[in-house]
Amino acid sequence: MQIIDGKLVADKLKQEIAASVKQLVDAGKKQPHLAAILVGNDGGSLTYVGHKVKACEQVGFKSTLLHFDETVSEEFLLNEVQKLNADKDVDGFIVQLPLPKHIDADKILLAVNPEKDVDGFHPVNVGKLTLGLPTYVSATPLGITKLLEHYCIDTSGKEVVVIGRSNIVGRPASILLSNQSKTGNATVTLCHSRTHNLKEKTLRADIIIAALGKPEFLTGDMVKEGAVVIDVGTTRVPDATKKSGFSLKGDVKFDEVAAKCSAITPVPGGVGPMTVVSLLLNTLQAAKA
Amino acid sequence: MQIIDGKLVADKLKQEIAASVKQLVDAGKKQPHLAAILVGNDGGSLTYVGHKVKACEQVGFKSTLLHFDETVSEEFLLNEVQKLNADKDVDGFIVQLPLPKHIDADKILLAVNPEKDVDGFHPVNVGKLTLGLPTYVSATPLGITKLLEHYCIDTSGKEVVVIGRSNIVGRPASILLSNQSKTGNATVTLCHSRTHNLKEKTLRADIIIAALGKPEFLTGDMVKEGAVVIDVGTTRVPDATKKSGFSLKGDVKFDEVAAKCSAITPVPGGVGPMTVVSLLLNTLQAAKA
Repeated sequence: MQIIDGKLVADKLKQEIAASVKQLVDAGKKQPHLAAILVGNDGGSLTYVGHKVKACEQVGFKSTLLHFDETVSEEFLLNEVQKLNADKDVDGFIVQLPLPKHIDADKILLAVNPEKDVDGFHPVNVGKLTLGLPTYVSATPLGITKLLEHYCIDTSGKEVVVIGRSNIVGRPASILLSNQSKTGNATVTLCHSRTHNLKEKTLRADIIIAALGKPEFLTGDMVKEGAVVIDVGTTRVPDATKKSGFSLKGDVKFDEVAAKCSAITPVPGGVGPMTVVSLLLNTLQAAKA
Repeated sequence: MQIIDGKLVADKLKQEIAASVKQLVDAGKKQPHLAAILVGNDGGSLTYVGHKVKACEQVGFKSTLLHFDETVSEEFLLNEVQKLNADKDVDGFIVQLPLPKHIDADKILLAVNPEKDVDGFHPVNVGKLTLGLPTYVSATPLGITKLLEHYCIDTSGKEVVVIGRSNIVGRPASILLSNQSKTGNATVTLCHSRTHNLKEKTLRADIIIAALGKPEFLTGDMVKEGAVVIDVGTTRVPDATKKSGFSLKGDVKFDEVAAKCSAITPVPGGVGPMTVVSLLLNTLQAAKA
C-alpha cells in the first residue's frame, strides 16, 4: 500500500515554481504577485490564508493579505475587489471563503476579473473547465490530478466515484477527471446527499474522491480491494491531547480503508499541501499570461 | 410501456409560450425576437434552422435568419455577431453549428453576448449551469428535463447513465441531472469513448440518456427491465424508400429496448421537438429579462 505524500509532491512542485520565478526575474520581469482577501477571524480561514502567504514566500512570489473586520459591508468588499482587478502589479487574487452571512459570496466572486481568478471560481472559468478549454482549474481538483499524475495512477477508463458535489471540489473534480485529457478520461459517478445506497457505488470504484466534509465517513467496508482513495476532508475535531485543542480529520477512516487500498492520501499531508501549491501554479500561469 | 411523446409536450409548451407572448404584447411590450446565423448549406443545419424559424412563427416570436455563404471569413462572422449583440430589438440569437472548418467555432461562441446566448453555449452560461446558478440551459438538456417532468419521472436519487460527453448534450445533461434541483438530484455516471465495459454501466441505470451519435447503438441486452430511455441521437441514414433519400435513426435500437423499458422517447418525435421548444423558452426568458 502506497501512502500518497502530498507534502513531498507539493515540495517538488514548489521547487519547480521557484525555478520559474527565478527565470522570470532574471529575464527582467516582475515577481508574480498573489493577493488574498480575508474577512473576519474564522480559525480555519486564518490557517489556510497563512499557508498561502507562507507558500508565496517559499517560491519567491510577492503576496498581499487584505484582512478586514467581519463587519465590513458588501459594497466595501466589492470596491476592494475592483481595486485588485485594476492593480497592474497583482497577477491573481483570491477571496477566502466562507464570507460572513451578510455578504453575497456569489456577487463577490462574479466581480473578480476572470483573468485574475486564480481560484477558478468565476463562472466563466468554471465554464471553460466544463467545456475542456484552457483556464484556471480550481485548486483542490487540480491538486488531486497532480497527485495522481505524480504517482502514475492512470485515470483513463477507470471507474471514479466522487462523493460530494460542492462547487469548489466535488463538481469540478468530477468534470476534470472525465474530460478528454491525459489526467482525465475516467468514467465518473458523482455522488451526493441524495444518492441512494452509496456503498454500492463506492464498492465499484477504482478511485474514490471523498469530499463531503464528514469526518471518517468512508469506512473499510465501502472500499474495493486495491482501490485508490483520495481524502479531501479536513474537519477540525476537538482533541484535548493537542495544544491547539483540535485535530484534523479527513473524510476517510484511515486505518480501515488503508488496509484495503493500493494507495491513499493521509490527512493532514495529502490533498491539503497540493491545494496550496495548485494556487501557486495558477498564479504563475497568470503572471506569465 | 410509455412512449414519451416529445411532440405532444412541445406543443403544450408552445401554447404556454404563445400565451406569454400575447400577454407581453397586450402589455405594450415588443415581440420576443430570436435571430439565427447559418453558414453554408449543410442539410441537417438547414432543417434544424427551418424548424426553429417555423416554431418562432407558431408562438408569435419575431425571427431573423442570417444565411451566409460557406466561404465567409471568421472576421466577417465576428462582425455579424457584434451587430446582433448591439441590436436592441434582438433578445437572443444562435449560431447554428457546425461552422465551416476555416472558422474557429470557440472564438465565435465566445463573442456572443452571454445575455443573448439562448443556446447556453457561452462559457459563462455553462459555468453558471455547473455552479447551479440561474442561466440559459442549453436546449437539448433542458428539453430532456422538461420531458421527464411532464411524465412525472422522478430523478432524485435515481441512477442515471449518460452516454456521450459532448459540450452541447452529454456534459450539460450530466450536470443538470445531478444538480440540487427538482429536476436533478440524480446519481449520474458520465460514460464516453474511453469507458470500459459500458454495458455493465448501462445495466445499472434507472434512466439512460443516449447521446453519442451512433445509430442503434444501445441494444436490448444493455438495458435493465423497467428503465427509462431518452434517445438524443438523430443520424441521417440512407434510405431508398424515403422521398428524401434518408431516414433519421436514434442511438437506441428502438424495438428491442422498448420491450424492456418503462418509458422511451422515439426518434423522430422525442427529444427533437423539445430542443426547439427549449430554445423558445430561453428566448422568452431573454425577452423578459
